[in-house]
Amino acid sequence: MSNPIQYDPIGVIRTPFDDPNGMPIQPAGESAARGTIELNDDYEAGLSDLEEFSHCIVLYHFHVGDDDYSLRPTPFLDDTDRGLFATRAPSRPNPIGLSVVAIESIDGPEITVSGIDVVDRTPLLDIKPFVGAFDVPAETTDGWIDSTHANVETTAADDRFLEQ
Amino acid sequence: MSNPIQYDPIGVIRTPFDDPNGMPIQPAGESAARGTIELNDDYEAGLSDLEEFSHCIVLYHFHVGDDDYSLRPTPFLDDTDRGLFATRAPSRPNPIGLSVVAIESIDGPEITVSGIDVVDRTPLLDIKPFVGAFDVPAETTDGWIDSTHANVETTAADDRFLEQ
Repeated sequence: MSNPIQYDPIGVIRTPFDDPNGMPIQPAGESAARGTIELNDDYEAGLSDLEEFSHCIVLYHFHVGDDDYSLRPTPFLDDTDRGLFATRAPSRPNPIGLSVVAIESIDGPEITVSGIDVVDRTPLLDIKPFVGAFDVPAETTDGWIDSTHANVETTAADDRFLEQ
Repeated sequence: MSNPIQYDPIGVIRTPFDDPNGMPIQPAGESAARGTIELNDDYEAGLSDLEEFSHCIVLYHFHVGDDDYSLRPTPFLDDTDRGLFATRAPSRPNPIGLSVVAIESIDGPEITVSGIDVVDRTPLLDIKPFVGAFDVPAETTDGWIDSTHANVETTAADDRFLEQ
């Protein structure tokens, strides 16, 4: 249908999580772990004006996951299998991860953020400002997660999406 | 720092916009244009359970943009240059686009959505459920866009990010 697309990481995400096992599964709240987005020096000029935003969207490559994905995985938050595209499971055809994180400070090419839920040294693909007018619909329904999201803050990852 | 990453499109996004010039710049509201996400047939099983969500996040490759990006572009919504990573400009080191769209219906491997703001035949990279608990911070500040977002619904794209 289309040709393969090639991207080069523009930096790396540093977090306290050496091991995906036990990591928080989603930022869910401002209280979550701090991390540092280390942009390659060449791109530093592109960070101007970002500090005025409270949050940014971070896109990254899930680099520790299992290349074999299931179209019907059992997500961390559930005990039944769900359609892959109705989950945020890291093992997917194009394993691009997305997190909305709070910007704490920016120093040169480094952004200190909170609410980061990725493994240390995750390759960074893009940073976008989080814009309420674009990114927050007036009203949303969260499907199967509605009945389970009370557990988002206490549920940790396990090894189900890792190479066995 | 890391090796190049290769992704293969998993489908294509069909919209009424043949030409990026004049296209709405962001979905911004439920009233925007309708489009169809045509997933490759192989992935159809991954769409189960998605219909229960009101919105999904669509990741795609900006395929018509200019490969030469500026780290200080002038965004559609402003008349001054801004740091690239504080904008949603399509021309960026890894031209991955992100839109939050409303799910109207799902029929086999096709999702009808509204609030889609991409050029017809845009290559699809990923679909994720939009989850309020993950994707909507308690309180946000939209930086330079705060003072201009009243114009989001009436501002259209022009050719500034296209190959000249």
